[in-house]
Amino acid sequence: MALRRPSGRDSMAAVRSDGPHPASSLAPVFDRAWAELAPIGRDPLTGGYDRSAWTTVDGELRAWFRAQAGTRGLRVEADRNGNQWAWWGTPGPGAIVTGSHLDSVPGGGAYDGPLGVVSAFLAIDDLRERGITPVRPIAVVQFADEEGARFGVSCVGSRLMTGLLTPDGARGLRDADGITVAEAMDAAGVPPERIGRDDMALARIGAFVELHIEQGRALADLAAPIAIASGIWPHGRWRLTFHGTADHAGTTRLADRHDPMLPFAATVLAARREAERAGGLATFGKVVASPGAANAIGSGVEAWLDARAPDEGALAGLVQAIVAAAHEEGAPHGVCVAVVGESHTAAVTFDGPLRIRLQALLGDAPVLATGAGHDAGILAGAVPSAMLFVRNPTGVSHSPAEHADRADCLAGVLALADLLANLAC
Amino acid sequence: MALRRPSGRDSMAAVRSDGPHPASSLAPVFDRAWAELAPIGRDPLTGGYDRSAWTTVDGELRAWFRAQAGTRGLRVEADRNGNQWAWWGTPGPGAIVTGSHLDSVPGGGAYDGPLGVVSAFLAIDDLRERGITPVRPIAVVQFADEEGARFGVSCVGSRLMTGLLTPDGARGLRDADGITVAEAMDAAGVPPERIGRDDMALARIGAFVELHIEQGRALADLAAPIAIASGIWPHGRWRLTFHGTADHAGTTRLADRHDPMLPFAATVLAARREAERAGGLATFGKVVASPGAANAIGSGVEAWLDARAPDEGALAGLVQAIVAAAHEEGAPHGVCVAVVGESHTAAVTFDGPLRIRLQALLGDAPVLATGAGHDAGILAGAVPSAMLFVRNPTGVSHSPAEHADRADCLAGVLALADLLANLAC
Repeated sequence: MALRRPSGRDSMAAVRSDGPHPASSLAPVFDRAWAELAPIGRDPLTGGYDRSAWTTVDGELRAWFRAQAGTRGLRVEADRNGNQWAWWGTPGPGAIVTGSHLDSVPGGGAYDGPLGVVSAFLAIDDLRERGITPVRPIAVVQFADEEGARFGVSCVGSRLMTGLLTPDGARGLRDADGITVAEAMDAAGVPPERIGRDDMALARIGAFVELHIEQGRALADLAAPIAIASGIWPHGRWRLTFHGTADHAGTTRLADRHDPMLPFAATVLAARREAERAGGLATFGKVVASPGAANAIGSGVEAWLDARAPDEGALAGLVQAIVAAAHEEGAPHGVCVAVVGESHTAAVTFDGPLRIRLQALLGDAPVLATGAGHDAGILAGAVPSAMLFVRNPTGVSHSPAEHADRADCLAGVLALADLLANLAC
Repeated sequence: MALRRPSGRDSMAAVRSDGPHPASSLAPVFDRAWAELAPIGRDPLTGGYDRSAWTTVDGELRAWFRAQAGTRGLRVEADRNGNQWAWWGTPGPGAIVTGSHLDSVPGGGAYDGPLGVVSAFLAIDDLRERGITPVRPIAVVQFADEEGARFGVSCVGSRLMTGLLTPDGARGLRDADGITVAEAMDAAGVPPERIGRDDMALARIGAFVELHIEQGRALADLAAPIAIASGIWPHGRWRLTFHGTADHAGTTRLADRHDPMLPFAATVLAARREAERAGGLATFGKVVASPGAANAIGSGVEAWLDARAPDEGALAGLVQAIVAAAHEEGAPHGVCVAVVGESHTAAVTFDGPLRIRLQALLGDAPVLATGAGHDAGILAGAVPSAMLFVRNPTGVSHSPAEHADRADCLAGVLALADLLANLAC
């Protein structure tokens, strides 16, 4: 096929001009799809989103997906792991697949996930407007439970599909109310006994590309609307439990205390120091103190460490240093520390030929690595995969303040459409 | 009246002997009352108690109180603030009142509160066994919501009765589920519109004495079963809110973060340092991170500081130093800190004449100050009040490991009975 636009760089320039341009007819469709998604799971006070997997809100997101596919005459299916697919053409080998996820972290933003799904539908609209009939099937996918906010493991839908997470491992995960993944899926109408590695679904994927809002501000600093992903830092989640002794806050002498909050606090500060030293990232965003009474020394503090680094060696060293600090800080207080690795995602390098093709299409778009996990990172171990990032002016992510300008979003749609046309025709 | 035992010191020695002694007939009654209380609100896994105010469990505790009073032919009443009273004799001025509370912190122990109520009933049994008919009325009281674990303010029942807490101030307090005190009281059958300062109830109290398990191990170190309280350290609760910016844990550069967990952690460590310096106590036992996702930098951390010191000046200095540290640690991260004083309990010195009378009765029982708040501390501002402490061998409090030996508990009953006999006859 012949590309309508010789390079994505030009097309992006066109989007930013004031005159008629290829994206002009997409804008109202984009706005409509976005407006229909906007109210689902939004906290009216903060503007943040609570779109956890297998909730009522998640069901509304799935209905939105079906409606978007229906409007376009795309055939919708849910696979054995609860991932949703919308097919243009007959499902089968060599399909070009694009999409992302619709769930959010608690209090998350509008773009992380949904932008990739909306853009996928819009890219199909663009191809059709251009009169393109693909030779290969094209599918839009939305992966189940990408954020892992509810059950503590991210990318559950894609991990199950690729076999990186076992069916039993997934089914037994529990949310804060003790509800298992199996129970939650069952309640949402997805039979949990059928989950697991899905070779049939995988065999159909010729290539996967995920468009995602950038989650830092590298593109803002580079004044570029679109980037191509080189890879994903290895990263993981560790649960540290500080076992102290519950006691009265008003009567227990300082020297007699086994207060788990103190070594936890020291470990938070150590994590920051060690991350700086390793050139990586370390975050404690979740902490639960037990029993959690204001007038009692806690019996325990449970804290989750999110750690990431440019390579596996650096990550291992970083986590080791933080865990060593936790033990060292606990000892003088008589506080034991238990550490459990909850998830680990290996370093990902995206498919070379796909990346070269994207670079040819998008001209001098920057190539960036990221510290964030994505379904594309999970799929990269099984099928040729790529990612596109859309500029995020403030770099803020996982927050109601997360934002991308419409012009940049439409530039993303056109870049994605160019790649689909290039691959599927 | 003539005291059966010339001094409490002797009576305690008697309790510890192997032969027949005055407490021997009390032991089975004590065991029975204790056995009936034991299962109410107990977590079968940990052995800890969850006896929050105005819950179903709290209702069961109130039923136990009515049953204990009923067995003894004591007339039960609930006052306007939900405190329960059991009267021996006609309610009226000059009454000698004893008791404590039945609620617990989450995961608390069996003795903190209930020991004072059980001992009060047993002391009446002892007086009757001795054939004593008091001239003044005697009442057993159990104060509502002493721990403040559910609604964040301690001693709600006694604070309301004495006017230290206004009706509107109490009614508007909310628990973690957003339920107000007014709604919770209403659901428990106590009309919230009637709460407030209760001059009639106060006018009846000639003296109040609260027996309580010791919450440290001073008596264990002194090898004494019973202590007399001199006073209560001034103490209070402050809520510190660290306002950061929610962001992605995997993509936000360390230098770009406004992570509220870091200054919170530094403040926890500063609080310990400052408490050591001030000869006081500072504890963070409750912390809530928002939104609380493991893969997101938090938007905020809310933490509760419990601080206590030997005098008001030392307490003010301690809190000021901790708050200054919080601001100082927040600034480099762009994290603002808001501080709200949630409660303050002034220093208490217990009634001098009552203390002298107790010292005369109990011989050389140690006299101790405590850092823990009690209903007796609240009442001390309105009526002559005193406290007795019963030895706690490990000093552990607000924990399932909290314990007092039965012999010491019975020594406490006899000491309390001696005081009642001395005051009421």
